[in-house]
Amino acid sequence: MIGFNCDYLEGAHARVLELMQQTNLEQTVGYGEDEYCEQAREMIRAACAAPDAAVHFLVGGTQTNMTVIAAALRPHQGVLAAESGHIATHETGAVEATGHKVLTLPAQEGKIHAAQIREAVAAHRRDASFEHIVQPAMVYLSQPTELGTLYSHAELSEISAACRELGLLLFVDGARLAYALAAKTNDVSLADLAALTDVFYLGGTKCGALFGEAVVIGNPLLQQDFRYLIKQRGGMLAKGRLLGLQFVALLRGGLYTELGRHGDLLAAQIDAACREKGISMLAPTVTNQLFPIFTQPQLDRLAVDFRFSDWQTVDATHKAVRFVTSWATTQEAVTALCRAIRALEA
Amino acid sequence: MIGFNCDYLEGAHARVLELMQQTNLEQTVGYGEDEYCEQAREMIRAACAAPDAAVHFLVGGTQTNMTVIAAALRPHQGVLAAESGHIATHETGAVEATGHKVLTLPAQEGKIHAAQIREAVAAHRRDASFEHIVQPAMVYLSQPTELGTLYSHAELSEISAACRELGLLLFVDGARLAYALAAKTNDVSLADLAALTDVFYLGGTKCGALFGEAVVIGNPLLQQDFRYLIKQRGGMLAKGRLLGLQFVALLRGGLYTELGRHGDLLAAQIDAACREKGISMLAPTVTNQLFPIFTQPQLDRLAVDFRFSDWQTVDATHKAVRFVTSWATTQEAVTALCRAIRALEA
Amino acid sequence: MIGFNCDYLEGAHARVLELMQQTNLEQTVGYGEDEYCEQAREMIRAACAAPDAAVHFLVGGTQTNMTVIAAALRPHQGVLAAESGHIATHETGAVEATGHKVLTLPAQEGKIHAAQIREAVAAHRRDASFEHIVQPAMVYLSQPTELGTLYSHAELSEISAACRELGLLLFVDGARLAYALAAKTNDVSLADLAALTDVFYLGGTKCGALFGEAVVIGNPLLQQDFRYLIKQRGGMLAKGRLLGLQFVALLRGGLYTELGRHGDLLAAQIDAACREKGISMLAPTVTNQLFPIFTQPQLDRLAVDFRFSDWQTVDATHKAVRFVTSWATTQEAVTALCRAIRALEA
Amino acid sequence: MIGFNCDYLEGAHARVLELMQQTNLEQTVGYGEDEYCEQAREMIRAACAAPDAAVHFLVGGTQTNMTVIAAALRPHQGVLAAESGHIATHETGAVEATGHKVLTLPAQEGKIHAAQIREAVAAHRRDASFEHIVQPAMVYLSQPTELGTLYSHAELSEISAACRELGLLLFVDGARLAYALAAKTNDVSLADLAALTDVFYLGGTKCGALFGEAVVIGNPLLQQDFRYLIKQRGGMLAKGRLLGLQFVALLRGGLYTELGRHGDLLAAQIDAACREKGISMLAPTVTNQLFPIFTQPQLDRLAVDFRFSDWQTVDATHKAVRFVTSWATTQEAVTALCRAIRALEA
Repeated sequence: MIGFNCDYLEGAHARVLELMQQTNLEQTVGYGEDEYCEQAREMIRAACAAPDAAVHFLVGGTQTNMTVIAAALRPHQGVLAAESGHIATHETGAVEATGHKVLTLPAQEGKIHAAQIREAVAAHRRDASFEHIVQPAMVYLSQPTELGTLYSHAELSEISAACRELGLLLFVDGARLAYALAAKTNDVSLADLAALTDVFYLGGTKCGALFGEAVVIGNPLLQQDFRYLIKQRGGMLAKGRLLGLQFVALLRGGLYTELGRHGDLLAAQIDAACREKGISMLAPTVTNQLFPIFTQPQLDRLAVDFRFSDWQTVDATHKAVRFVTSWATTQEAVTALCRAIRALEA
Repeated sequence: MIGFNCDYLEGAHARVLELMQQTNLEQTVGYGEDEYCEQAREMIRAACAAPDAAVHFLVGGTQTNMTVIAAALRPHQGVLAAESGHIATHETGAVEATGHKVLTLPAQEGKIHAAQIREAVAAHRRDASFEHIVQPAMVYLSQPTELGTLYSHAELSEISAACRELGLLLFVDGARLAYALAAKTNDVSLADLAALTDVFYLGGTKCGALFGEAVVIGNPLLQQDFRYLIKQRGGMLAKGRLLGLQFVALLRGGLYTELGRHGDLLAAQIDAACREKGISMLAPTVTNQLFPIFTQPQLDRLAVDFRFSDWQTVDATHKAVRFVTSWATTQEAVTALCRAIRALEA
Repeated sequence: MIGFNCDYLEGAHARVLELMQQTNLEQTVGYGEDEYCEQAREMIRAACAAPDAAVHFLVGGTQTNMTVIAAALRPHQGVLAAESGHIATHETGAVEATGHKVLTLPAQEGKIHAAQIREAVAAHRRDASFEHIVQPAMVYLSQPTELGTLYSHAELSEISAACRELGLLLFVDGARLAYALAAKTNDVSLADLAALTDVFYLGGTKCGALFGEAVVIGNPLLQQDFRYLIKQRGGMLAKGRLLGLQFVALLRGGLYTELGRHGDLLAAQIDAACREKGISMLAPTVTNQLFPIFTQPQLDRLAVDFRFSDWQTVDATHKAVRFVTSWATTQEAVTALCRAIRALEA
Repeated sequence: MIGFNCDYLEGAHARVLELMQQTNLEQTVGYGEDEYCEQAREMIRAACAAPDAAVHFLVGGTQTNMTVIAAALRPHQGVLAAESGHIATHETGAVEATGHKVLTLPAQEGKIHAAQIREAVAAHRRDASFEHIVQPAMVYLSQPTELGTLYSHAELSEISAACRELGLLLFVDGARLAYALAAKTNDVSLADLAALTDVFYLGGTKCGALFGEAVVIGNPLLQQDFRYLIKQRGGMLAKGRLLGLQFVALLRGGLYTELGRHGDLLAAQIDAACREKGISMLAPTVTNQLFPIFTQPQLDRLAVDFRFSDWQTVDATHKAVRFVTSWATTQEAVTALCRAIRALEA
């Protein structure tokens, strides 16, 4: 069985493990105040052209999302997100458990748009009962989205402008950011993210690390006391250097983007195989996630040799599923999958 | 200006005030452990044919909703509600502030149905990532609904059966319950509510009291320690007897249902006036709330003399608004409104 | 049996009830936006010499405390309070239920002092693990305290100065404020409270109203969006005018202070009777609460005719109990109690 | 500089890293449902003689504490802990952030006793205002304690019996459990912990792993839905196998206890050196933490070559500090420290 069900099936890239091995018996202070974390912070600030950004390392995505959102909002405020956004669907209500409502907006191919945000805020403000309704105060996006699609520089700029005009914070979840940065169609750089958002993160877990997310906070108000919040929400790793070390390894020599490119190119091969067979996709394939639409007999056939995820029922005879490639996916695995797709009966 | 904008424009029914006046200088213990509360509890248990039910008094609806829901759920559990449900829309995220997600379902005329609940739970249970998704554990309904409609005995029984089969709790918000109990088309009694739900409440605030909601808890597990929860959420009135006294006054001699009937009958007059003019309604009028659909010129005309609430835009030229009658609405006010409706130009 | 167990045994002062009665069938808008609330707000601003203060009305003390504290603090921040403070002892963890720790300080006669606050903050800041410890960000005091004592103008000024220097908010719980304002030894006016605190409240429940607390927010940052917070925590009364009306009645013609004086004077009579008998007190009697220390046989004797509250065991043969007078206590009741005290055997 | 400031200065034991390296490119399912986690769970159940226990892996201690406590308690319930307990002092109010109060008890050498628990519960239950006070519902202990001391089998049995009698849950934090299990004076086995508690955990982070805590839940009620809670609080590691693998490595061939013994033996050497010099200790040294009391000049001398932690001021001229050994501490480091201690001037 070859797994394409997600991008956290394997451990870490060899260079990540090597650096952890090499430094294993060094003594450093804990909780992210060591020299490796500092080095990673400097590398990230440089890569983001954001010398004044605060950079913090947390262990996983749900933890990061809830910590950032709870740090930013007052109790009566909520966060706008696509209805398909990870915080709205797959975090067991972690945001609500910190007291805040996720205010969902309909998404197109996983994305929301500036006009929707403007309208949501305007509707709130013109409602006579506005004080009886959760106040929108932050926008949460994922880049790439949960459907593997990308916000363009123009789209992100419009959203950023709307947020600044309206007094909302903008937070971008980059759990799979390597695959976005490396995508052919991408025109949003790390520096753009730093400039256009109040806070975003570079995902490590799905992009070559054992675990870890690097939060980049540009907004000075949100920088304040952020380490208390990490500790309170259980995200402050005792041996914090493990996070710093992994990001040092990933950022050295452009490894992070290189790993993203590897996943994207393999996904493009699978996409091509699907297209050849006339198999349509739930969303265009631009990063490392693909959402082909198959018949049940086709799925049964593929399930003999491959693991993938159920996604959604499209019609009486068709289902969309999700295939994911990653930094660790081999060409052999993809070749086998493409061969199997090409061999499917219509 | 005559107000039809809500059912809490006036104070309390005269008999409520009289009882408070008469007993004003008596000394009683606080926090709802006095003899008047005990008397009201006994009257409610009798009216509900529920001798083992726990009855508690809280001050207002949002407070009651959040206290009941927070008392009932474990942290990873959420409450299913109509998308138009009060907890989902107009309580500033009070439920989320206690850590729980409101899981909304599409509503028809303000109601949800047993099949939707079954499907929501089934979908949760068959999802491979079910532990990453908030677990549905309670159903919240309003009787009457936020659109003034009623669950029939058959509908409520089906929902109750589904909840019991699936292990969900059933909670009915009766903020306007007097208007439901008195409705011509109603076939759900207090005893039915007590038998079919785990917890429900009789609203006082909108039904003749100055304030107050009487929570009836049939489920013994939910009865446990409930007074701690009331205190913790700020709902335990020091002079608790004020709540007991008001419910004693409302329940004596059937005043509660009588006040509901008054509101319903006046609403029916307004409904009749609308029908005569061919004005359509967003939902059928069966209790004390009406949702007629007018043109803007018609609304401008009515707004000269009457207060009502914006509800929703129906199309380019029509808007639904809300008129509400109550125990305190006068026949004169309704006659004036009906005359004004009949005088509208098409 | 005559009750001295608390100051919420009776209903409301006659003038409060009268005003509610007179206005009962008037129509007003809900949620505190009516003319009576506005009138009460103006009267309070004037009495506090604080024309820019925001004034809000809530139903009860626990509700007010948790709403103010949750509105003011970020998630990692806590509130410093006397270990005997109401929020630390008798609110079922309402503050913790909003996510915040109450950081207790040893109290002397119910009071904490500026030096303790300075030391607590200094200790926090010099701790190498400060980010692992809840950050003190607010000071909570009660005036009068839970032991009936008073902060002097000098003490309160020092605490206020410490808070401002250290960046902490100062919040004064005035649940029994009428008894403080009227006390012979008091030198802290409403205007002082408004000037020295960020937020405080005038209690109604224990001072002549049926219920209600009037929150005065001087700090503009804390004023922002406060009504959302009231609604979210369940404290926004639908018929909000009931709160406004009561404060209008209490503030008219100085009734509020007059009621406080009544309670204080009667307490002083009981105090005098105790002194005559050589009965010592847990704290000096300056407002309407007394804490005499009796032997068990003495308590048994008094309990035949009077209700009072257990307070604390002093030694093997002595207990302190609490007697409370109020606006509603009669001279006859006090005379009877004093006679009984004088008749006690040593 | 040689660090004795904590037990998380280095990475992981070689065998832990080796196993992670060997399995690095294997594909497994995520979120702790892989074969390595299952293997570790079986090893732990066997070591605990608890075939029906649920075993879950989380990343760190604060996360584990807040997840267990929030999973176990209803909103009005609190957790009893030593005033020196980690949850009471050094977790930035993580427990309060989930809505629960930590109810502290005075500790002797870091420990609380059954009699204190019985008295706390009795005091709660006999208080007339018990519903206004947080209800004690769980006891939290650390083994070893934050002062390095141990609960004996007799002490723990008494506490367990008290909890069961009173209906409280018993939770033991074993962040440093390896050092307890290996201690000369220890008579509490893993099987004892499993039998006497409702839930406890074996710490990995401080005992040879990179990170990770293994929660053993004996109480079936607390087992229910626990994985939802882990996910909601941000503790569910995507590459969950990393936790399983580390515990497999630690439990194989008794490595876990062996690492504990190493730390304990080195601590005993430092303790002996202190005793020789007549240096007294804040608490007896029985595990890997020592709390010697030095003069400032002595501390200044030691600080030239060694890192340690401030603990508490003992008197005008003496301070207690903390030295910690670990699985990774070398004999050379300890020899150097002992030499330095012996060379101190009195």
